[in-house]
Amino acid sequence: MTTLTPTELHQIHGFWRACNYLAAGMIYLQDNPLLREPLKPEHIKNRLLGHWGTSPGLSFIYTHLNRVINKFDLNAIYLAGPGHGAPGVLAPVYLEGSYSEIYTDKSEDLEGMRAFFRQFSFPGGIGSHCTPETPGSIHEGGELGYSISHAYGTVLDTPDLISVVVVGDGEAETGPLATAWHSNKFLDPRRDGVVLPILHLNGYKINNPTILARIGHQELESLLEGYGYTPYFVEGDDYDTMHEAMATTLDRCIEDIHALQARARLEGNLDRPMYPAIVFRSPKGWTGPKSLDGHQIEGSWRSHQVPLKAVKHDPDQLHMLVDWLKSYYPEELFDEEGKLRSEFRSLAPQGTKRMGSNPHANGGLLRKSLHLPDFRQYGVDVQVPGTIEVSNTYPLGVLMRDIIKANPHNFRLFGPDETASNQLQAVYEATKKVWWGSYLPADADGSEMALDGRVMEMLSEHTLEGWLEGYLLTGRHGLLSTYEAFVHVIDSMFNQHAKWLEISRKLSWRAEVASLNLLITSTVWRQDHNGFTHQDPGFLDLVANKSMEVVRIYLPPDVNCLLTIADRCFRRTDRINVIVSDKQPHLQYLTMDAAIAHCNKGIGMWEWASTDLGVEPDLVITCAGDVPTQEALAATAILHQAFPDLKIRFINVVDLLALQPPLEYPNGLSDRDFDSLFTIDKPIIFNFHGYPWLIHRLAYRRTNHVNLHVRGYKEKGNINTPLELAMNNQIDRFTLAIDAIDRVPKLQVAGAHTKEQLKNRQIECRQYAYAHGTDLPEVVNWRWKNLD
Amino acid sequence: MTTLTPTELHQIHGFWRACNYLAAGMIYLQDNPLLREPLKPEHIKNRLLGHWGTSPGLSFIYTHLNRVINKFDLNAIYLAGPGHGAPGVLAPVYLEGSYSEIYTDKSEDLEGMRAFFRQFSFPGGIGSHCTPETPGSIHEGGELGYSISHAYGTVLDTPDLISVVVVGDGEAETGPLATAWHSNKFLDPRRDGVVLPILHLNGYKINNPTILARIGHQELESLLEGYGYTPYFVEGDDYDTMHEAMATTLDRCIEDIHALQARARLEGNLDRPMYPAIVFRSPKGWTGPKSLDGHQIEGSWRSHQVPLKAVKHDPDQLHMLVDWLKSYYPEELFDEEGKLRSEFRSLAPQGTKRMGSNPHANGGLLRKSLHLPDFRQYGVDVQVPGTIEVSNTYPLGVLMRDIIKANPHNFRLFGPDETASNQLQAVYEATKKVWWGSYLPADADGSEMALDGRVMEMLSEHTLEGWLEGYLLTGRHGLLSTYEAFVHVIDSMFNQHAKWLEISRKLSWRAEVASLNLLITSTVWRQDHNGFTHQDPGFLDLVANKSMEVVRIYLPPDVNCLLTIADRCFRRTDRINVIVSDKQPHLQYLTMDAAIAHCNKGIGMWEWASTDLGVEPDLVITCAGDVPTQEALAATAILHQAFPDLKIRFINVVDLLALQPPLEYPNGLSDRDFDSLFTIDKPIIFNFHGYPWLIHRLAYRRTNHVNLHVRGYKEKGNINTPLELAMNNQIDRFTLAIDAIDRVPKLQVAGAHTKEQLKNRQIECRQYAYAHGTDLPEVVNWRWKNLD
Repeated sequence: MTTLTPTELHQIHGFWRACNYLAAGMIYLQDNPLLREPLKPEHIKNRLLGHWGTSPGLSFIYTHLNRVINKFDLNAIYLAGPGHGAPGVLAPVYLEGSYSEIYTDKSEDLEGMRAFFRQFSFPGGIGSHCTPETPGSIHEGGELGYSISHAYGTVLDTPDLISVVVVGDGEAETGPLATAWHSNKFLDPRRDGVVLPILHLNGYKINNPTILARIGHQELESLLEGYGYTPYFVEGDDYDTMHEAMATTLDRCIEDIHALQARARLEGNLDRPMYPAIVFRSPKGWTGPKSLDGHQIEGSWRSHQVPLKAVKHDPDQLHMLVDWLKSYYPEELFDEEGKLRSEFRSLAPQGTKRMGSNPHANGGLLRKSLHLPDFRQYGVDVQVPGTIEVSNTYPLGVLMRDIIKANPHNFRLFGPDETASNQLQAVYEATKKVWWGSYLPADADGSEMALDGRVMEMLSEHTLEGWLEGYLLTGRHGLLSTYEAFVHVIDSMFNQHAKWLEISRKLSWRAEVASLNLLITSTVWRQDHNGFTHQDPGFLDLVANKSMEVVRIYLPPDVNCLLTIADRCFRRTDRINVIVSDKQPHLQYLTMDAAIAHCNKGIGMWEWASTDLGVEPDLVITCAGDVPTQEALAATAILHQAFPDLKIRFINVVDLLALQPPLEYPNGLSDRDFDSLFTIDKPIIFNFHGYPWLIHRLAYRRTNHVNLHVRGYKEKGNINTPLELAMNNQIDRFTLAIDAIDRVPKLQVAGAHTKEQLKNRQIECRQYAYAHGTDLPEVVNWRWKNLD
Repeated sequence: MTTLTPTELHQIHGFWRACNYLAAGMIYLQDNPLLREPLKPEHIKNRLLGHWGTSPGLSFIYTHLNRVINKFDLNAIYLAGPGHGAPGVLAPVYLEGSYSEIYTDKSEDLEGMRAFFRQFSFPGGIGSHCTPETPGSIHEGGELGYSISHAYGTVLDTPDLISVVVVGDGEAETGPLATAWHSNKFLDPRRDGVVLPILHLNGYKINNPTILARIGHQELESLLEGYGYTPYFVEGDDYDTMHEAMATTLDRCIEDIHALQARARLEGNLDRPMYPAIVFRSPKGWTGPKSLDGHQIEGSWRSHQVPLKAVKHDPDQLHMLVDWLKSYYPEELFDEEGKLRSEFRSLAPQGTKRMGSNPHANGGLLRKSLHLPDFRQYGVDVQVPGTIEVSNTYPLGVLMRDIIKANPHNFRLFGPDETASNQLQAVYEATKKVWWGSYLPADADGSEMALDGRVMEMLSEHTLEGWLEGYLLTGRHGLLSTYEAFVHVIDSMFNQHAKWLEISRKLSWRAEVASLNLLITSTVWRQDHNGFTHQDPGFLDLVANKSMEVVRIYLPPDVNCLLTIADRCFRRTDRINVIVSDKQPHLQYLTMDAAIAHCNKGIGMWEWASTDLGVEPDLVITCAGDVPTQEALAATAILHQAFPDLKIRFINVVDLLALQPPLEYPNGLSDRDFDSLFTIDKPIIFNFHGYPWLIHRLAYRRTNHVNLHVRGYKEKGNINTPLELAMNNQIDRFTLAIDAIDRVPKLQVAGAHTKEQLKNRQIECRQYAYAHGTDLPEVVNWRWKNLD
């Protein structure tokens, strides 16, 4: 008794043959798509690009999933981990009809197939990864290593979804992938769907075998068991045997998954499920040319890219290509018009059950706006600016607590073991941290863990970012908070997501997804017990390289600004919002109304801290970031006390990129407004949170750039008190005041004595820190006093 | 029959008690170090910083290693993976005497101990990670996840070294750590030493349990077996039992290691060894306070940092601290002077056998300069600039082939499966890729794999970077080549290594290590078959944020420059050299002598491409990078043909950071030279390899910055031909020529027609690409013609 009837086997093998035909066609053919006339060199593309090697395996799996989706009426999506796997995905997506519905010129006929082939890896066409242009894809695979974490993100809060993720054995060597297997400890079988990982051992990378293909069966089985899965092996190269093995195994896996779900959902058995995983070992470049010039192609790294490279000019290779293409018997597969015959096409599910049309893979379609409480209710009551201290991030936690309450299936908070450390612990009043590892009695005492928590903590920024991206791309909302220095761990993931969004925004059929919100905290200026390794504000430089359509950088100086910004970030779509805010207590400056007005502008004057009302200032003091704002204000106070007649204009920057002109950034300050705010010829002292050069880069086009003097972090740190660290990097109040004296013409003589005093004060502060391990109390307890 | 005699047990427990006493002392005491007088609040530090939780486990292991080093006469170093583990390492390093030999004021007496305590996590003192200031450390652990890859790097080519790496169960959740376990497939037991990983399950991170502590024994055992290790478990909390178990297990592990080495070295059995690994499960904050205010401390996440936070102000907690400290019986451990009594001190090995004094952990001491062949022999014979094409990277592979031949135990090449793809395959004439996975018959056909290869390829940039850092920090040399877009994967590792070097350079006792050389290739401008995801030149922005003492960025335009730069990089110490060079064929410009002269200057005029000889130019055309140089030259040719009287000065930048003044960068161009080269008022068109803003950031202080017009990559790409991609980002010859016409006053009218022609030419080029999938042959085959 076999799993597949002969008819099913015929159907499956036919669908797969059609996939392989299309994959090869995409790589080679610009015309004569079904070989209805003899293949000639002019039918071959001028440049042969694309990767054959991984494609047959990818489409083999896709084909088989079609059968089980129908059999079990599954809600399933497909993530292709291997790089350059697009031909193996585009082919079945085209054959099932999803492709032509979106791209009507790539219709299911000869002409459409020609266009479909031609566009592949062709200027103005589509790439060889599963880019946003690929229907059914939420995972491009351009950079390797994120397939599993993406897949786990998709199934959170979607109890009926099965995300099948094909893991390339190349990408399986990456760190992010290697730890993402542990995502299964964060899945609630009652509430979440299931990820079915299929480790595709095709054995080779570009030029090397893969580790997991060469460690032997026992080690690999142990590894997957150690990761917490029940591994099944489908291995071989004989078509019929492999079809039967795959069908049997997939049936078994789906039955396992349903049984484990029933165990939790119906029986209330809350043991952590050991979900199935499949090891699928098939030859690289399967069904392709066996060898060339005495070198093995199929089953070797030589089939990684284009197996026959000289077909356009070498008649022998052209002949081999014809043999190869005809080995799939295209005339049996496609009808006169060039459409897949219905006997094969009926393998594909219908409508949105097709993996290329499943709305979970175009998550904006499913996105529901968050129910957001009025953020103004969570603000700080500021009577006098700069006189009370509050942790800037704590109230954001309170806001998110209520967001979680109001959106019980639609929002999650992510962080690498730092939610409480980052002062967001109020969320635990609404939900806990999800945990499906074992529990100990001591956990009852304040561990904040639960099986159904909505806070996700794992010490892997990669996994968190991957989960969040998967969650967002399937239509939900979230925020990731992480330490500033270590957000660099996910630099490359940030880049890839920004690129994904930028392309997606240009595709009318891709619905808008919620923005990816990154809260960068535990910042460079408060590292008294972490030291030099934890001091790096350079993520902002990276962010500013990406498309200004997609990225935002916010540096709220206080709670009310942070809340205003957060509310905005939770509402906007298709962006990456980077919010920098320290977790420790900081002075509060703006009333809620003032904060809203300030954030709307992005860059604005603080009149209460300025002494130039109604007149042209002598000096502009500008700041961005919480600690730099405090020091800039303290410098302003020092200058005002020493030189009561000095006209100082105080400006704060919240929306950092608005320093650019509107041509570069939608919310950018016009040249006219910039000149009016920053003057065209007065000295500007800019105290910045990050590396100082970023400000020059954003403002170099402005009229008064020549007078712009920027202070920021410049790699001068160790175990320092806050003031000492500020002094080392010259963002402290004393240095800023000295900078001002040096730059305002009328102070250059008059200010000599004050400068001397300030320098002595710096020495005194440093000596105190070295003697006591803390800063001078009067510096620590400094408060703003309204200017007379 | 026990492993430990009663006397040994007493000695080991005593040494460990002393370690724990010191670890607690570091966190709390600024005076009265041995409690020779009643403990008073003024003896307590004002700020209590540091992490107690992981320290007892770290020193437990260190203590036990002391015994086996003596017993087996081992050459061993110690890597502490857990973050904030310094107290657990500093303590035994001090007790063995290594610390006082380097830092003579931290002497082995009362006064020294006071200073030793006081400096810890104190302004002007040392941090709580195993920073470069820590004798015996090559791994700071400030950022988590790199301990295992670092450890594997240390043992390459050091057959007698055993690197013991304690892996924190927190860091074990990171991606880089999770895949680094597979490093054992790249170790040759005949030639390399051994890494003994000790997974320290103390169970908790900051606020959460760890995954590996909560998956159960069977899963964890399977996981480690799956990673290819033979796991041993040491678990418990009873001191005597744990000492005996650890001693027995360590003996067994060392015997296993020696047996596996003998098997390979003496018997010639080349099966991959399944080396031992230890799972060490002990309570977090072991031996510390059991509970506080009804909450469990020992064995819980509450012991992560400072267990008793209020000792300075709360007499009860002060009393608890006294009880805690006295529980180690310091009076039994230390003599009258305050030195560890000899009965315990004799546990420590002697001289350089002490892990705090082992020269492998101060690798510059062992560093031998490379035998470098004359790089000039590997150059390209350039008769006429810009007329022949050669892959820029290929000759570097030939040079490295001969470096490997001349330095058979001292140099390795690292890359993520891309050595041949990056055109460095000539190295395979000297050595192969090391591989200890299984072999198949087909591997004999060109796979370039061998058991004793010196090229290390794994698809994990993290692991490669970690290996290379470990290899360099133990005194050897190497180079890592990687794709430009994905060097961002190791952004954070780069940051951490730069910080390590910056601190190390300030420590006179740390000998200089070889520079870390990163070859960035497969660059943004040649991604015709990879597309948008592979286009990101932003790593340079990150590099430019680090200390200019440590980092270098080179953009050699051709082979002869690349060879010159490479030779320099292989000679210099204590730096990170980033070399950007594409792998594909590029035009060659400079003779070897010209290249050497050009690279010595860093920025220089190319007279053969300039038309301003002896006069002030109308226009300066500048470029950095191979593709931008080609386009800038083509633009120069277009302009010269159209406007024969136009005086163009052509400048190329190799040493990018030299755009800065000497105050910022040692090799920086003086203002005088800059003004002389770039003029003070003529338009400058700068064609740059990376994001254009970086040039503004480097040059904003220069006189003529206002006339500096920079072109570079600005996220406008997809599947494009080379010229089309250049046009999308406006670094192409036509755009540059149009830019020049727009900016040179005398061309603004005269050039109107030419501008029109150039714009039409762009349209024509784009249409050709869309029609044929390639660029116009006359563009592809463009060659420089000497100016008349």
